[in-house]
Amino acid sequence: MTTQEQLYQWQELAQQLRVDSIRATTIAGSGHPTSSMSSADLMAVFLSKYLRYDFDHPENPNSDRFILSKGHAAPLLYSMYKAAGVISDQELLSLRQSGSRLEGHPTPILPWVDVATGSLGQGLPIGVGVALAGKYLDQLPYNVWVLLGDGETAEGSIWEAFDHASHYTLDNLLAIIDVNRLGQRGQTELGWNTQAYGNRAKAFGWQAIEIDGHNLTEIDQAFSAAVAINDRPTVIIARTKKGKGVKALEDLGGWHGKALKQDQEQQAITELGGERHITITVDKPEEQSQPATLGVPQPLQLPIYQKGNKVATRRAYGDALLALGASQPDVVALDAEVSNSTYAEDFAEAFPERYFEMYIAEQQMIAAAVGLQVRKYKPFASTFAAFLTRGYDFIRMGAVSRANIKLVGSHGGVSIGQDGASQMGLEDLAAFRAVCNSTVLYPSDANQTAKLVPQMSNAPGIVYLRTTRESTPVIYGSEEQFSIGGSKVIHRSERDQATIIAAGITVHEALKAYDRLKNEGITARIIDAYSVKPIDVQTLHQAAKDTNGNLVVVEDHWPEGGLGAAVLDAFAGNSTTPAYKIPQLQIIKLAVQNMPTSGTPEELLHAAKIDADAIVEVVKSQVRRLVGVS
Amino acid sequence: MTTQEQLYQWQELAQQLRVDSIRATTIAGSGHPTSSMSSADLMAVFLSKYLRYDFDHPENPNSDRFILSKGHAAPLLYSMYKAAGVISDQELLSLRQSGSRLEGHPTPILPWVDVATGSLGQGLPIGVGVALAGKYLDQLPYNVWVLLGDGETAEGSIWEAFDHASHYTLDNLLAIIDVNRLGQRGQTELGWNTQAYGNRAKAFGWQAIEIDGHNLTEIDQAFSAAVAINDRPTVIIARTKKGKGVKALEDLGGWHGKALKQDQEQQAITELGGERHITITVDKPEEQSQPATLGVPQPLQLPIYQKGNKVATRRAYGDALLALGASQPDVVALDAEVSNSTYAEDFAEAFPERYFEMYIAEQQMIAAAVGLQVRKYKPFASTFAAFLTRGYDFIRMGAVSRANIKLVGSHGGVSIGQDGASQMGLEDLAAFRAVCNSTVLYPSDANQTAKLVPQMSNAPGIVYLRTTRESTPVIYGSEEQFSIGGSKVIHRSERDQATIIAAGITVHEALKAYDRLKNEGITARIIDAYSVKPIDVQTLHQAAKDTNGNLVVVEDHWPEGGLGAAVLDAFAGNSTTPAYKIPQLQIIKLAVQNMPTSGTPEELLHAAKIDADAIVEVVKSQVRRLVGVS
Repeated sequence: MTTQEQLYQWQELAQQLRVDSIRATTIAGSGHPTSSMSSADLMAVFLSKYLRYDFDHPENPNSDRFILSKGHAAPLLYSMYKAAGVISDQELLSLRQSGSRLEGHPTPILPWVDVATGSLGQGLPIGVGVALAGKYLDQLPYNVWVLLGDGETAEGSIWEAFDHASHYTLDNLLAIIDVNRLGQRGQTELGWNTQAYGNRAKAFGWQAIEIDGHNLTEIDQAFSAAVAINDRPTVIIARTKKGKGVKALEDLGGWHGKALKQDQEQQAITELGGERHITITVDKPEEQSQPATLGVPQPLQLPIYQKGNKVATRRAYGDALLALGASQPDVVALDAEVSNSTYAEDFAEAFPERYFEMYIAEQQMIAAAVGLQVRKYKPFASTFAAFLTRGYDFIRMGAVSRANIKLVGSHGGVSIGQDGASQMGLEDLAAFRAVCNSTVLYPSDANQTAKLVPQMSNAPGIVYLRTTRESTPVIYGSEEQFSIGGSKVIHRSERDQATIIAAGITVHEALKAYDRLKNEGITARIIDAYSVKPIDVQTLHQAAKDTNGNLVVVEDHWPEGGLGAAVLDAFAGNSTTPAYKIPQLQIIKLAVQNMPTSGTPEELLHAAKIDADAIVEVVKSQVRRLVGVS
Repeated sequence: MTTQEQLYQWQELAQQLRVDSIRATTIAGSGHPTSSMSSADLMAVFLSKYLRYDFDHPENPNSDRFILSKGHAAPLLYSMYKAAGVISDQELLSLRQSGSRLEGHPTPILPWVDVATGSLGQGLPIGVGVALAGKYLDQLPYNVWVLLGDGETAEGSIWEAFDHASHYTLDNLLAIIDVNRLGQRGQTELGWNTQAYGNRAKAFGWQAIEIDGHNLTEIDQAFSAAVAINDRPTVIIARTKKGKGVKALEDLGGWHGKALKQDQEQQAITELGGERHITITVDKPEEQSQPATLGVPQPLQLPIYQKGNKVATRRAYGDALLALGASQPDVVALDAEVSNSTYAEDFAEAFPERYFEMYIAEQQMIAAAVGLQVRKYKPFASTFAAFLTRGYDFIRMGAVSRANIKLVGSHGGVSIGQDGASQMGLEDLAAFRAVCNSTVLYPSDANQTAKLVPQMSNAPGIVYLRTTRESTPVIYGSEEQFSIGGSKVIHRSERDQATIIAAGITVHEALKAYDRLKNEGITARIIDAYSVKPIDVQTLHQAAKDTNGNLVVVEDHWPEGGLGAAVLDAFAGNSTTPAYKIPQLQIIKLAVQNMPTSGTPEELLHAAKIDADAIVEVVKSQVRRLVGVS
């Protein structure tokens, strides 16, 4: 039974959360007070009685995790932090100001925020990842709580999360949907039809509890029931009013994302009973356990490939991941139902307890990776390069979350052959380069791939590896070293007349071109630029100097944003570095310019003019032009 | 009642579809026979009795539309075309060969294929778009049929489609899920639990019919019932066996995407009763109506803005779209629940019958646009630039579909201010440039925006417009012309010492810098490169020549793949064009290098070093260096 005193305390706290959400947004001049107010009663009870969190030690592995999926309700979250005593009223009022930790939408600049939110529909799928960590890796009894808005349930990613949470029996995952009926511009699809939400959730295998989200007793009972359910995930579907508590705002359109003016603010605060400065003690977790041990680290024994053999880099990725898994028990793997193509399957077989099959749900796969790294695991998530585009918003937000995840795209480029354009990753290098602080790798041979995979494990941020479908010759001995940011000069001489820069499959075309050019008396420098970002600027500068500024870049990618762009960038300046000037610099980019069809890999490389024939032709005409000029 | 003779004919046709799927893939040496075989009975009945299609006139507006969402079952589709008498057996056997129209996954190179498939989970949301056109725009009674695989229902986009189809009461949309239980690497999440599929579909407002997908009578009854349902969309959930009909394949793992060897092929064909060469007559639509008229075209009256006023380009987009709507009745608009931010709301109010609210479901929005253009409408779909990343796979596939769609992203760059990084589009230019045959526009002022919007309407392919949240000065008179592929030289003189290239918000920073530099005796050329792709190469070359190769590009975007990359590309060569050499060419790229926070637009532009201060500084140091050198 909920006592009257408890109810009174919760009500007071809820009003404080409302008042503080208004105060913070009014002084900021923007923000979302009304979306905060609809959730205030839910959060007052949650914070007072159900959350188990060690604010002094955010990394405490026994703490519950809380994700504000409706990230625009950031003022509510910050008001909760104030109520928990971890930020001051003064800091609360710095909301949205330059230099403040309290950004317009939550980011992990704050130590209690695990992941950035604000792109809707992402909090729940990330919560699935954290809950996977809690149940299957940490094996600790903490709960993962996610507060969603009703509007964001229109995102398919939410249903990927509902699906996967029930598939993995994530009884430690508890979602709350704040059904305040109003989106940014009007009523949501389902309005206050909480039954429809409930039916959908149940059809996806969840327990659903429908309540009045402003009735503190119902809220208390719902949370109490939710934590007791231990055979499936639970969602509390709370019917609420946007702007609840202030008549001028309550359940009214036109108030989404609008701060109150000062006079409106004063009236609203009065109506809510005035300012309060209640501080509550949030319960710490009772459990004081350490995460489960997932194996004893073995010395790293990378696979070794014999020079001259033909091995696909995707095959080498699978082998290296398996080796890494034995060496680093915190490495986990995920795949979107193509593990027999990406070769994540070997890891899955060897370490089934650290492998999560995400089926054909790339958004959920990437979100789960972000969730897993919240608990410090090192997720490697793989699918076809083309299909990682499905999760680009999650990758983008992963960078805002300062997440450390490793993504692996197989089947890069037209060289996949017969399957056709839909299966060809041709924009992946561009997409991943345009992610803040990302790393982009594209190895050409099996030993090189194997050497890069362990480095991915320790690299921060969004790390992308592109692998190739086709088997290609092993060109490097297993003793050679390759590091992120480096490159390999395969051929060089004193009298190189041009430089050919390639990566992945085109390295092999460049090598064929090298031989043919040599037969015609032209010597070319060959650079394997396996580290597309960061790219090896010094080696490129030196090559440009040494080869009369004659550079040819060849890549199995659209002309925009990929390896060719990275090479061009190496010669451009920025706000701190001047441009690097080479007299007569001329950079030729060979890339895929027209929509490919089906065909053999050789036919398609040729048709795209990124094979040895095309390289030979362009280098010859470049050298001829140079001779003509000088 | 289904007669025995009918049943026999259907059975024979089904076996032929199986045999042909095997024959085509065996001779190709790759492909998906078993995924074709599970659907053969369904498609035999469908083709024989339920499809209404005018193969001689694929553009006949009364024809049903059929989308093979499980695009890897392309051999089945092509076998159906052979059975319908529109491709020869010889062409069937050209599957997956270079030069063949029969690609590994279907593309609109074939006149009866409306959209490319092969990235799973896209056929149904595209079908929603076609069905919206049929019901609300064409107002014709044709049906839209979509054949899905079971595995692809793990994609959230499928549930966005289920959701939107019931929201819009699309009783003309009929889906068939081929539940063959086996994905690429093992069992699907739900296996043969057709009831679970049914419950989910019903919870999303659909009629669901569960059948044995190899029982021709049940199939016939299900199709018959489905077409009779006229208050909601219907899904037939068919329990099938992968590889059905051949014991060595049937319901067995390890056979996904594998062609049979020749001896296996012969045995399988024998088991299926041998080759057949049945041709059937597919019924043409009885209806012979024209699509509804959606208004009388008015002369185009674009909005006009006074120079010196401050108007956001997003505001001008909304105004221009409204004007375009009056002028072109085939223009339709969609938005993902932010139409009051993108200003699509004005079109929605004026032309509610041509506006589709897609709620917070960007994948579905883009897919619907692709579906609408199948029926020759001109869809403009808008949301925040950042959130278009959610649908990047749909954009990529839109290009494979040769779709003509217009996408509009508002709130580009850090200049949005307080909302923070999650809401800032900073990778959109890179992502859209890396789309085959795309157009990328980024206007700086309201009149320029207005002039570009009608040109978007007629431009082919994926056309992207980036708009700005902030109000910016109107700098162009309404009489000025701007065309795709062009640029505007705002300031030029005989003695320009540097060129500043900007677009959108940074044009205004460049103009401020121009004045300050002039005060210090440095004259700069200012180029407004509003057409980022195609970029105005000639104007850039001329500027480089005229200004000693001193170029500064400034953009509110990550450094990779955006305007700066486009400018660099203008000086690189490719397989047909040599590099453009300028002695002393030095290009400086100013772009957003670190993760932004909240703050005022001015603070954030300054912190990112893309404001007038940064431009002045870099131009001065560039000119100083040059003076020092010469």
